[in-house]
Amino acid sequence: MIKTIAFDADDTLWHNEPIFLHAKEKYQRLLAGYHDESWTERHLDEAESRNIQHFGYGIKGFTLSMIETACDLTEGRITGNEIREIIGFAREMLASPIDLLDGVRETIEELAANYSLMVITKGDLFDQEAKLARSGIGDHFAKVEIVSSKVKATYKGILERNGIVAGEFVMVGNSLRSDILPVLEIGSRAVYIPYKTEWFHEKVSEEEMREHEFATLESIAEMPAWLAKVSMG
Amino acid sequence: MIKTIAFDADDTLWHNEPIFLHAKEKYQRLLAGYHDESWTERHLDEAESRNIQHFGYGIKGFTLSMIETACDLTEGRITGNEIREIIGFAREMLASPIDLLDGVRETIEELAANYSLMVITKGDLFDQEAKLARSGIGDHFAKVEIVSSKVKATYKGILERNGIVAGEFVMVGNSLRSDILPVLEIGSRAVYIPYKTEWFHEKVSEEEMREHEFATLESIAEMPAWLAKVSMG
Repeated sequence: MIKTIAFDADDTLWHNEPIFLHAKEKYQRLLAGYHDESWTERHLDEAESRNIQHFGYGIKGFTLSMIETACDLTEGRITGNEIREIIGFAREMLASPIDLLDGVRETIEELAANYSLMVITKGDLFDQEAKLARSGIGDHFAKVEIVSSKVKATYKGILERNGIVAGEFVMVGNSLRSDILPVLEIGSRAVYIPYKTEWFHEKVSEEEMREHEFATLESIAEMPAWLAKVSMG
Repeated sequence: MIKTIAFDADDTLWHNEPIFLHAKEKYQRLLAGYHDESWTERHLDEAESRNIQHFGYGIKGFTLSMIETACDLTEGRITGNEIREIIGFAREMLASPIDLLDGVRETIEELAANYSLMVITKGDLFDQEAKLARSGIGDHFAKVEIVSSKVKATYKGILERNGIVAGEFVMVGNSLRSDILPVLEIGSRAVYIPYKTEWFHEKVSEEEMREHEFATLESIAEMPAWLAKVSMG
């Protein structure tokens, strides 16, 4: 019997990856006079991976990686005006309208009537709170947990703090690494709804996924039917 | 009867402002060839104030303000190598050792035996968690709340979520604006422990403070004596 449904936010409730991809494209064009675009992209991805341990997730850390990479790839020849353009990309990203995925608004409204809903999201506290406030669906969530990493202990702590039994909890998200695997490990259920693109940090090998059972849905709109099936055992 | 004591973190439990001041000094020296240091400082402070609504608190947002101000003040003549130095300041800030204020370790250990202790801090989730983990005193706190703003509703929500009665709660911190005023407004007690420097965003007029009652201590080490006095009514 499921009582609590928790949702990841970025690329589960609203589109997020396209905002980063769009900024990356503009960034590559900005540096096109110095290097070809695939070279720039590779170095930016490397900087991002390297910097996550220092800067954490989110737009501000990503922007610092863009700026650092621009300095490195141009051997310091990048100009102040070009750097200012990169900061402009960050401002645009932060101001992007919240674009809910198809079916999110209706499904969240429907589920809120019968379940306790939560958001469990990684990322920058300030960014994520602002996005939830602008999303228009924030009031349907009884609890919002913004965490710096999503590992087994994170979920265990959240369930304990909120008095939730593992067997009555399901996590819904687009990342096998962050939303599915650690949740299955604590004995809860998980529903995987892949997004059209996958962030390269979140890739999981097939081997890691073997012997794990979880549902894969095409859209959040399929959640009510899945819950009905599960409740019938 | 006080049961729960919550502490602000930056400049209440550990030194924080000096890390920012040190970075600012290096930044002013870096730009000394373009502008005199007080001019640079004034413009950086203005950029920080302006950007807080977009970037939030913390080292990453501050670094983006430093970079943006450098571009503006040099009319784009700043070089990539200079920008890279600014990113170096951010890395140093993030890696700064946690330097507890005098008396913090002993007092926190003593109070943890008789009270439920919390941390309530503003700032970047990732930074603040990392600092608490490195502080060596993290285990004494039953609960850590990292919030994006500290207003009346923030404290009200925290007390409700944790089943704390306003009359049994005291907040300890170095900011009248964030730690004292909103806590008095919900009917709890507050203990003000000024830090040697005050962040300009947090200044409060004397008028605002009139008719408010709260204790002012010189050091956290005076907390046990203050609590004993309060408990005797």
